[in-house]
Amino acid sequence: MAVADWLAALDRRAALRAKAGLTRRLHPRAAGDDVVDLAGNDYLGLATHPEVVAAAARALSAYGLGATGSRLVRGSTDAHHALEDALAGWLGTDRALVFSSGYLANVGAVRALVRPRTLLVSDAHNHASLIDGCRVSGAETVVTPHADVTAVAAALAAAPGRPAVVVTESVFSVDGDLAPLARLHATAREHGALLLVDDAHALGVTGPAGAGAVAAAGLAGEPDVVLTATLSKALGGAGGVVAGPAEFVRHLVETARTFIYDTALPPAVAAGVHAAVGLARTRDDLRADLSRRAALAVRRLRAAGLDVSTPDAAVVSVTAPGPEAATGWAAACRDRAVAVGCFRPPSTPDSRSRLRLTISAGVSQAEFERALEVIVECAP
Amino acid sequence: MAVADWLAALDRRAALRAKAGLTRRLHPRAAGDDVVDLAGNDYLGLATHPEVVAAAARALSAYGLGATGSRLVRGSTDAHHALEDALAGWLGTDRALVFSSGYLANVGAVRALVRPRTLLVSDAHNHASLIDGCRVSGAETVVTPHADVTAVAAALAAAPGRPAVVVTESVFSVDGDLAPLARLHATAREHGALLLVDDAHALGVTGPAGAGAVAAAGLAGEPDVVLTATLSKALGGAGGVVAGPAEFVRHLVETARTFIYDTALPPAVAAGVHAAVGLARTRDDLRADLSRRAALAVRRLRAAGLDVSTPDAAVVSVTAPGPEAATGWAAACRDRAVAVGCFRPPSTPDSRSRLRLTISAGVSQAEFERALEVIVECAP
Repeated sequence: MAVADWLAALDRRAALRAKAGLTRRLHPRAAGDDVVDLAGNDYLGLATHPEVVAAAARALSAYGLGATGSRLVRGSTDAHHALEDALAGWLGTDRALVFSSGYLANVGAVRALVRPRTLLVSDAHNHASLIDGCRVSGAETVVTPHADVTAVAAALAAAPGRPAVVVTESVFSVDGDLAPLARLHATAREHGALLLVDDAHALGVTGPAGAGAVAAAGLAGEPDVVLTATLSKALGGAGGVVAGPAEFVRHLVETARTFIYDTALPPAVAAGVHAAVGLARTRDDLRADLSRRAALAVRRLRAAGLDVSTPDAAVVSVTAPGPEAATGWAAACRDRAVAVGCFRPPSTPDSRSRLRLTISAGVSQAEFERALEVIVECAP
Repeated sequence: MAVADWLAALDRRAALRAKAGLTRRLHPRAAGDDVVDLAGNDYLGLATHPEVVAAAARALSAYGLGATGSRLVRGSTDAHHALEDALAGWLGTDRALVFSSGYLANVGAVRALVRPRTLLVSDAHNHASLIDGCRVSGAETVVTPHADVTAVAAALAAAPGRPAVVVTESVFSVDGDLAPLARLHATAREHGALLLVDDAHALGVTGPAGAGAVAAAGLAGEPDVVLTATLSKALGGAGGVVAGPAEFVRHLVETARTFIYDTALPPAVAAGVHAAVGLARTRDDLRADLSRRAALAVRRLRAAGLDVSTPDAAVVSVTAPGPEAATGWAAACRDRAVAVGCFRPPSTPDSRSRLRLTISAGVSQAEFERALEVIVECAP
């Protein structure tokens, strides 16, 4: 009877979500479908770049598919270490450590920064993985209003003498706006606090040689800054990275549960991402294209009367009237072979539903312009 | 000054670990090294199987390297869905859902089972990912002594009328012993509780057609049982899976943070693992070999006077006199081209350090026997 209760309770919760327009469904795609992709995070089109695919194929052939163990047991290969050296060199940090996902990198980084009595100061728009890192760390966490440096300063000032860490994304994943990194760092340093920045949506897209928003803000290599990122967005692969002072990376290797107790990233993925790093560093031309397209998207969509965010990288957010309208809008675009992100609560930082458009160099200019027309024509 | 304090504090903690013999170091391996691997989890040797590698290579070529997005946005491919259908069919469950790592699958599954007032009853030897799932769920958690069904019954009896979930591994990762699954399930059901089993070290190794310990115990498809596993051990790939009733899998798709907010497993990995499932189902011959070798290892090592666990699958644990002796022992084996796992606190469920030997069909019988000799000869 308790079992039937359980399943019936899950059904009731699903029905409530459906009534609120918040059902989520998987839409599997075929290889090489002809959809214009304004939903994925392959900003530079590197996931299908011949050099990336060839590097991964070579490592697949040499190592086999899986890493066969955790990094400390049998899962560390030369491919992982070469990637970590390349990432540290690009990002301008002492060292970099690769995790099997960005989620696990963020959880591991936040926890490893927590000492007894640590205060975490976390931006209200932070990603779920940063929030989970704060929760599982057990540390007291103050959530400050989005991008509010004054509130961060006040939170730090209210906890004098305690270790503290300011936790933020650089380019926020839903609205695509950039955190005030330089001011956050100055405030953190003034109070003797550390700064953790998730650079996932900036890496490869902004900064000198695409090294991201931390590098762009001049903070790369600062001893009180820890950077995290995914290897699954502009680098076209999978996995995550934590980069910072050598002492901190050693601390992660020796103590981070999400590093120690997890199977390593497949060597073929590490090798493919390494090739992507080499390509990403050189493609300022693609980054300039992304900026131009983001500006074009804002002009076209605003001209059609839509409410559009002001993008700082390659993420553009468009307000939808409500969750059901957002779902219908995205479905209508999909029917016309245009994929857009559909973000509804609780995946949005507020009650507002949105379409999220991500701009990829893998889409041609003509396809991109057609997709903007489709989005306008399908608007509710 | 606070920054220097931080790094100095990390250095002091590293020095304390070093003094206690608990330093952890990465040892990268080259492709195709000539090491006899008794440390990895590639139990059936499928990570390098030509059909697995070929299936992954085809998908790499067709889809590119990364999934380019989360499962609900752009990351679900036909390769993921075909793998999920194959896993559900093999495991004997309604449905199966693939996560990008076993760690995230466990965290997602535990959290999704928690309702208001839920009591979690967790085995003392459970894996870090299950423990983190319990922690981040916020539910009250009672840790029961290892494999103690009476203690589980008492914990459930002490919380009448509350939803409860019994959380256990099947084959435990450090000592290789099997949980009393049938009795745990009977106890859970008697109290109206659910049973979550992490079948990571049993999948492919035990059970009918290698479907694991849950299937072996006759519990596959029971409506009050949820199964998790990794795709990175006997299946030679990466990622994790949660399998159970359709209502529960839908609940995960719609609410599990570690599913929703994470980039999908690379399609090539999904395709390679799918090929591995097909192979694993048919290889009862390899599973019989693993059992024979586990028994041989126990005989040889006990004959040499070593303290050896009684393995229920392909994991054999050997007691070391202490953490430094364990490290030295493993290093001496490595110098003679034999890789063994070195497990010290806090990676062991108690204060005892161990070597962990994992048996793989990818190692020849002659190499395996030589490796046992090396382990005996290097014993402290």
